[in-house]
Amino acid sequence: MLLVTFSEDGRTRIGVLDRARAEIVDLARAAPGLPQEMRTFIVLGAAGLTEARRAVASGAHRLPVARVKLLAPIPRPARNIFCAGKNYRAHAREFDSSGFGTAAENDAVPEVPIVFTKAPSTVIGTGEPIPAWLDPTQSTDYEGELAVVIGAGGRGIARADAMRHVYGYTIVNDVSARALQSRHKQWFLGKSIDGFCPMGPAIVTADEVPEVGGLRLQTRVNGELRQDAAVADLIFDIPTLIETLARTMTLEPGDVIATGTCAGVGVGFKPPKFLKHGDVVAVTIEPIGTLENPVA
Amino acid sequence: MLLVTFSEDGRTRIGVLDRARAEIVDLARAAPGLPQEMRTFIVLGAAGLTEARRAVASGAHRLPVARVKLLAPIPRPARNIFCAGKNYRAHAREFDSSGFGTAAENDAVPEVPIVFTKAPSTVIGTGEPIPAWLDPTQSTDYEGELAVVIGAGGRGIARADAMRHVYGYTIVNDVSARALQSRHKQWFLGKSIDGFCPMGPAIVTADEVPEVGGLRLQTRVNGELRQDAAVADLIFDIPTLIETLARTMTLEPGDVIATGTCAGVGVGFKPPKFLKHGDVVAVTIEPIGTLENPVA
Repeated sequence: MLLVTFSEDGRTRIGVLDRARAEIVDLARAAPGLPQEMRTFIVLGAAGLTEARRAVASGAHRLPVARVKLLAPIPRPARNIFCAGKNYRAHAREFDSSGFGTAAENDAVPEVPIVFTKAPSTVIGTGEPIPAWLDPTQSTDYEGELAVVIGAGGRGIARADAMRHVYGYTIVNDVSARALQSRHKQWFLGKSIDGFCPMGPAIVTADEVPEVGGLRLQTRVNGELRQDAAVADLIFDIPTLIETLARTMTLEPGDVIATGTCAGVGVGFKPPKFLKHGDVVAVTIEPIGTLENPVA
Repeated sequence: MLLVTFSEDGRTRIGVLDRARAEIVDLARAAPGLPQEMRTFIVLGAAGLTEARRAVASGAHRLPVARVKLLAPIPRPARNIFCAGKNYRAHAREFDSSGFGTAAENDAVPEVPIVFTKAPSTVIGTGEPIPAWLDPTQSTDYEGELAVVIGAGGRGIARADAMRHVYGYTIVNDVSARALQSRHKQWFLGKSIDGFCPMGPAIVTADEVPEVGGLRLQTRVNGELRQDAAVADLIFDIPTLIETLARTMTLEPGDVIATGTCAGVGVGFKPPKFLKHGDVVAVTIEPIGTLENPVA
């Protein structure tokens, strides 16, 4: 299933997206007993999904997608988004040779996952403008990424068990102010400008992605293909990322882990191709869909 | 006022600490119209404080501190705690010469604030054990810090206006797994082990701290004085930290900004004095009090 958060008539709730028919099953009406907020719904795990499937099968309470506003599937995560840095080889190299990394980071391919965070206030939905005008350093860059949504939480999760904790997948654009990221040493500030984390358009549940390495990540800027990689090329795969985080922290339902971006970011070009007002960034990963945002 | 979150008979709520009498005014009973959770109470701003003061003045509904369990004043922040790194000169130097910094960080005193985060799941109250056993690298260290609690939120806050956004102050111990912090390049993982952010014992409201630079920060390990500095020695003072964050992010009521630690952390000794099972770490900043935690 493709799970979405949407608003219609000023009321925000969750639903199931039917792309073929361009419709949303409105769970608030089709399954009124379910929570109407994604994080609480995720806590229900398989029971919630069973109920949602039943609602879809009933065929009732459908809305045209065109009539609603899609929001980020998790509009406000309960804590910062976990992000893996330099997790594709070719990107690690392009980043290090860009001049925006710092000396310590210039060992190209990391030996262990690099993890930083983005504030929950960065999250925006598909279609919402990325406020590049907020970046005082005018070095705003895109990073298309596959993101994992955690279902069952826990600590001390072994690699072999990790995939059982994956609820589903979504897309994030880890928008970054390169000069801020570099100037402040720790990446948090350059990654956490308001609106700098487009997320969506949906969460695809894990059962519909039997082999996540087989997914393809593509980012286009104004239609031009900039990033194109297989998720199989991740240096630290999803079980490793989950194991690394959960070794010392308790993961929680609804946690979002952005797995890292591949080669082709703006800063990888000479001169860098930073985002500017009027650009449109589209990140596509099927079967999730396309996350598309104009730049303001 | 000293604001606390406490539990008694399994019910968590907020109160006002009267240290002279070792009593807590139970706001759930003395001012039942107020929220019973600190973040919601902070959103009320001055109106909530006026109501709480009235409840204190009534003299009723007091509990002996000994009968309750003090929790962290904000047991679960709504997003990660903001932390300033290397924000006292002498600490910046001791950290860089410890061998646990990375080359890029070894420019000692930073030119702009370094900001990283700690997950909300790190927060524990005074008296609760710090689970150093969770640190697989056995390099657990203390960092006594003054923390700012944000009242009115906002973006684009100028230095000159910044102090009006300060609701109050508390103490945090930014417990750090040094080898994790260093090995993963970005500091987040080494700073975010479950239970690695003791906070408390109370929030002192800003009106009772006319000159924050005049506060003194002291950390003792098993009674031995390890850290002793004036908050006036911060490289980037509180208005600068607020201005830096709010330049690109909207600050929110209840946000916590740990302002950085001073010289005297364990890793500053040769050989390093890491925390071990049975140690007791006490961070004192008057008029907030002492945040004391055993190490497990």
